[in-house]
Amino acid sequence: MQHLLDKKIIVQGFPGCFHEEAAIKYFGTQKLNIIPSTTFNLLGEKLVNNPKDHLAIIAIENSIAGTILQNYRILREKQLRVIGEEYLRIRHNLMALPNQRIEDINEVHSHPMALNQCLEFLAKYPHIRLVESDDTALSAKNIRENKLNNIAAIASETAARIYDLEILNHGIETSNVNYTRFFIVQDATQILPEGAYDKASIYMRVSHEKGSLMRALACLYNNDINLTKLQSFPVLGSVNEYYFHIDVEFDDFKKYKKMMSEIDVATLMVDVLGVYKKANIYDHQTIG
Amino acid sequence: MQHLLDKKIIVQGFPGCFHEEAAIKYFGTQKLNIIPSTTFNLLGEKLVNNPKDHLAIIAIENSIAGTILQNYRILREKQLRVIGEEYLRIRHNLMALPNQRIEDINEVHSHPMALNQCLEFLAKYPHIRLVESDDTALSAKNIRENKLNNIAAIASETAARIYDLEILNHGIETSNVNYTRFFIVQDATQILPEGAYDKASIYMRVSHEKGSLMRALACLYNNDINLTKLQSFPVLGSVNEYYFHIDVEFDDFKKYKKMMSEIDVATLMVDVLGVYKKANIYDHQTIG
Repeated sequence: MQHLLDKKIIVQGFPGCFHEEAAIKYFGTQKLNIIPSTTFNLLGEKLVNNPKDHLAIIAIENSIAGTILQNYRILREKQLRVIGEEYLRIRHNLMALPNQRIEDINEVHSHPMALNQCLEFLAKYPHIRLVESDDTALSAKNIRENKLNNIAAIASETAARIYDLEILNHGIETSNVNYTRFFIVQDATQILPEGAYDKASIYMRVSHEKGSLMRALACLYNNDINLTKLQSFPVLGSVNEYYFHIDVEFDDFKKYKKMMSEIDVATLMVDVLGVYKKANIYDHQTIG
Repeated sequence: MQHLLDKKIIVQGFPGCFHEEAAIKYFGTQKLNIIPSTTFNLLGEKLVNNPKDHLAIIAIENSIAGTILQNYRILREKQLRVIGEEYLRIRHNLMALPNQRIEDINEVHSHPMALNQCLEFLAKYPHIRLVESDDTALSAKNIRENKLNNIAAIASETAARIYDLEILNHGIETSNVNYTRFFIVQDATQILPEGAYDKASIYMRVSHEKGSLMRALACLYNNDINLTKLQSFPVLGSVNEYYFHIDVEFDDFKKYKKMMSEIDVATLMVDVLGVYKKANIYDHQTIG
């Protein structure tokens, strides 16, 4: 891990955003050289233009919103390689300048998705006006920089720490099963970090003959490869075609290699987005 | 179709939004009794509270953004039934009060997703400031109601018609393969409209035994049922479980019924979101 920590880590969002939290969790330290990026597209470009000394963290799915299809597309189009994954429980916190109580707050600023995920909590304070912003961390930053009293932000604990705000209420999200999965990615030209790989993200295209998907899945079954994600996707530019994104887990890398050589024959196209060590935040059960 | 046209149609968004365009395309007439709803959740509630004389239109996936997982959840939780589908090519148009040229425009207002999808066009006019709004149609409405010169909106042709704006540029989206799929839904207590059904949306849970997904797919294969969508989804409240959303197409309703009785045995749980006639905007090819 040490040589990875020497690299700059590009994240989408402002300092204190959930991408930064995911990076801290994955690398196990707050001493990271984080490079903010305003969009996922720019993030991909920055990484490709600085392949040797940069990594990036990219959100790929959320338990409430679903798979972030655009980000899979960025991985493919920019030829990025997944070298790790991290799951982050998304916790929203109400924060403001120190020494205020919730009764003092007139407005809450945050990203619309964060406001939306805290509506049950906010409904208890009907006097508070909700104001949408571009980014959760940006709302926190704004309160600090403009010394805004009577205004609170909904953002991460990291944002509260960075912008020196006081958390009035922790974990105000309605659903406690709000998880986001992130990929840690590098440019395809870089050597894969060493490690005990037990998971891979691949995509494939199967013919539209009857039974072709079953033949592809049989390659997994015959080699004791577990499926943890399977999604069909329409192909942009050709509304009649479908690709699959698949995540697999395995105990034996040789069996994974054997499966890949068999699936190469059984499908029209197969490509590997990355092989990596699975995140152990919670036990993944296979689909069957 | 006539008795369906007597019903009120709840859509998410303001008059002129893409949901209204989808309704017009599906029913083949502009003479619809459209009820706007600000959120998908409220749309579901309104429909359940007015089961007899209301339908709803709900976006379910987009070729660029992917599947809208929240809306599948609303269908399941509110016990709504899919009675039809429609595909809409999302075309973005630049519109303003009449008799202005693009050189007169200082600001463009629209939903962030629409602005994002038109960045290549907008890059040609660096003098134009981009301003985010809650809704494409709302931006158009705002220009008309406040008689805003020098400001343009990005919205649908329907919005231009409703708010009497002049389209300066048609189809300014970067990707010409921006399609959204919509479901037409009714409350589960209502009788299914008659018709020649050839498509169904189902969801199922398979055990995490080895080969359980293949056994489920074999029920399709053995009955000549074509698969057009297959997605695994994490189960909220249980991060270890997965459901599948599946779309199938068939020529013979009896074979579909036979497949469903077999898949009922092969899976832990299976439920039907709806059987309906497939939309023929473009030919769907099966996954195999």
